[in-house]
Amino acid sequence: MQISRSPLARPFPEMPAIAGVTLRAARARYKEWDRCDLTFAELAEGTAVAGVFTRSACASSEVELGREAVKQGRARALIVNAGNSNAFTGYRGREAVEAIQAQVSAALGCGVDEVFVSSTGVIGVPLPKDKARAGIEAALSAEPCSWEDATNAIGTTDTFAKGAGASAMLGDTRVEFAGIIKGSGMIAPDMATMLGYIFTDADIAPAFLQEALERANSATFSCITVDGDTSTSDTVMAFATGKAGNARITGWDSPGADAFAAALADVCRNLAQLVVRDGEGAAKFITIRVSGAVSDDSARRVGLSIANSPLVKTAIAGEDANWGRVVMAVGKAGEPADRDRLSIGFGGVWAARQGQPLADYDEAPVAAHLKGQEITIEVDLGLGEGRATVWTCDLTHGYIAINADYRS
Amino acid sequence: MQISRSPLARPFPEMPAIAGVTLRAARARYKEWDRCDLTFAELAEGTAVAGVFTRSACASSEVELGREAVKQGRARALIVNAGNSNAFTGYRGREAVEAIQAQVSAALGCGVDEVFVSSTGVIGVPLPKDKARAGIEAALSAEPCSWEDATNAIGTTDTFAKGAGASAMLGDTRVEFAGIIKGSGMIAPDMATMLGYIFTDADIAPAFLQEALERANSATFSCITVDGDTSTSDTVMAFATGKAGNARITGWDSPGADAFAAALADVCRNLAQLVVRDGEGAAKFITIRVSGAVSDDSARRVGLSIANSPLVKTAIAGEDANWGRVVMAVGKAGEPADRDRLSIGFGGVWAARQGQPLADYDEAPVAAHLKGQEITIEVDLGLGEGRATVWTCDLTHGYIAINADYRS
Repeated sequence: MQISRSPLARPFPEMPAIAGVTLRAARARYKEWDRCDLTFAELAEGTAVAGVFTRSACASSEVELGREAVKQGRARALIVNAGNSNAFTGYRGREAVEAIQAQVSAALGCGVDEVFVSSTGVIGVPLPKDKARAGIEAALSAEPCSWEDATNAIGTTDTFAKGAGASAMLGDTRVEFAGIIKGSGMIAPDMATMLGYIFTDADIAPAFLQEALERANSATFSCITVDGDTSTSDTVMAFATGKAGNARITGWDSPGADAFAAALADVCRNLAQLVVRDGEGAAKFITIRVSGAVSDDSARRVGLSIANSPLVKTAIAGEDANWGRVVMAVGKAGEPADRDRLSIGFGGVWAARQGQPLADYDEAPVAAHLKGQEITIEVDLGLGEGRATVWTCDLTHGYIAINADYRS
Repeated sequence: MQISRSPLARPFPEMPAIAGVTLRAARARYKEWDRCDLTFAELAEGTAVAGVFTRSACASSEVELGREAVKQGRARALIVNAGNSNAFTGYRGREAVEAIQAQVSAALGCGVDEVFVSSTGVIGVPLPKDKARAGIEAALSAEPCSWEDATNAIGTTDTFAKGAGASAMLGDTRVEFAGIIKGSGMIAPDMATMLGYIFTDADIAPAFLQEALERANSATFSCITVDGDTSTSDTVMAFATGKAGNARITGWDSPGADAFAAALADVCRNLAQLVVRDGEGAAKFITIRVSGAVSDDSARRVGLSIANSPLVKTAIAGEDANWGRVVMAVGKAGEPADRDRLSIGFGGVWAARQGQPLADYDEAPVAAHLKGQEITIEVDLGLGEGRATVWTCDLTHGYIAINADYRS
């Protein structure tokens, strides 16, 4: 089945070069296709690394090894394989990852734990070692490529290339960020996988990079959902080459720490939203703002309960201001809520306040809002100061077509 | 939109009369329709009652009042309103329920807390007191009706009437069970609601009836899902009139307690499965058997994670033996699992064992199985003795059509 470009797609942005990062791509031919499917990012010596990984109990060997290796804080290379996720492949899958690490560490003269590998695509088929070896050989001698080329090379059934840039001033030093991501597409017989990478030339201590990435993740990647399904390979990594020459940031007290963290979070938010914009079958981008919860975490869980509700998502697809389904999703979230304090709105117009429909509720502006592509749902729980924003897309015939009509 | 009868529908069964239960139905006209929408079950003096209710934090007044009243253990009447769920209607909704209780308690000469009320349908509109009052007046003077009539009267967009009967021998005494249920249909702008009622002529102490119902519920109604969305009104109640004349069952040590509990669980399981068979857009009935979990509860949660996964449900709709999606759903369940001990099968044929695809996996019998209407998924976690069976349906274009294409 040919999946057409998402109606919510965004053009690939201008992205800065990041000193200390060299991108190359090659054809490993993990599938029968004529495209680059192996991406090789070479990183300058001294590059700090951080990562957040899927919490799946059935994670791939790439995730298991990456989660361990990230603790030592240094990276010299990232390799991304597209077309084969190497998940659920047992010891043979693990051997394939270790072979890549050994080959790259020999070529670059670095430790094996400074080589990070991600894979996405078909599951249950061990990554073929010979194709990986030849692909890496080809990449090592290839010309450097652009961000957009690299983004296309990590994609599978993504319908558009997703990237986000940013910059920040750390004292007098300008630092650059470039982030790329793939996700929410599908290659039967496997699962949607989100792989995201943010590169910066800032000089950041690894422990602080990890802390900043985890903080950014909790308000961005952890606040999106397409279908509530979590892949065995989800990975977001940050790499800081230190080439910008800023005074090294080692903690929140370092000058520029907040500016750095804010820019990193901006990139993460933009990338996360792009994944939702490429959600399978998505026709509308939905922003859910929850306030009045007992805590920010509680607000996020209420938001995700709404965002994952098939009844809410189909209501939005049907352009139906069905606040009753939002009530239902709040009620089932397992978080503190009081029916008689709950307020619900669409597009900035309250439909119900404090547990009751508004007597003078005017559905016309809400109906107009729901006809658009960018939808907001506002929920106030009336209990406390907790807030969160969550992003999702609607659930349409397109989702069913992509995931059910196509046989592997 | 005219929703056609589910392809998984079952004919309404023969059901026994239950001594001490008189059913009547009337036209309260909660909506603009010409059908009975108020059901009145009059129960003999001394009838024991038990109930399990939605855990939604936004439950309706009917649920709040029922949950309280069931604690005193006696019931004289059940009133079910169809077409208006009275949910999210604040104090006016509560007043409407209390008015019904007062009217019926006066007519029957019983306590208000012996009158149980359920409502299903549109939310956000207080149940109109005048319609309810006139409907109850009409019901009080109506001729008794059949189980099938009563079942049709509690339904909303159910595509078929759902009932289940059973009998059990308690010592030398035969006792009868009749259960009716509505659920998984939809009237915009509201939510699917499951309301189920089981009547028996057995003589059962209220505390034991509650215990037996909770036990049955945990293995039946708590093991089904259509879309993972929990309504604000979900209710299952059991009524035992005591007219059969058996030696009263007061605890698990009473003669016949196990036989009674088994028959009650049978009725609950049959009713629960019928709700899945009427799942919105359902074309296939899916049984998920989980074994090898660390506990039965853990097995149930893993089963529900699979059953609620849109990717698994669309794969079954597409007749695709996509065990990778099952791995994903196991991994995200938040329960103990070990990728390298996990086995997955369809229709009794293993596709993957202990973390790896079977080398000699023959997809032909699995493909044939998936073309049928009755699908089984087997998952063995390889960790312990915990087991559970969960039931769901596939996710099809029909679900989207019912919930998105139709504007309220």
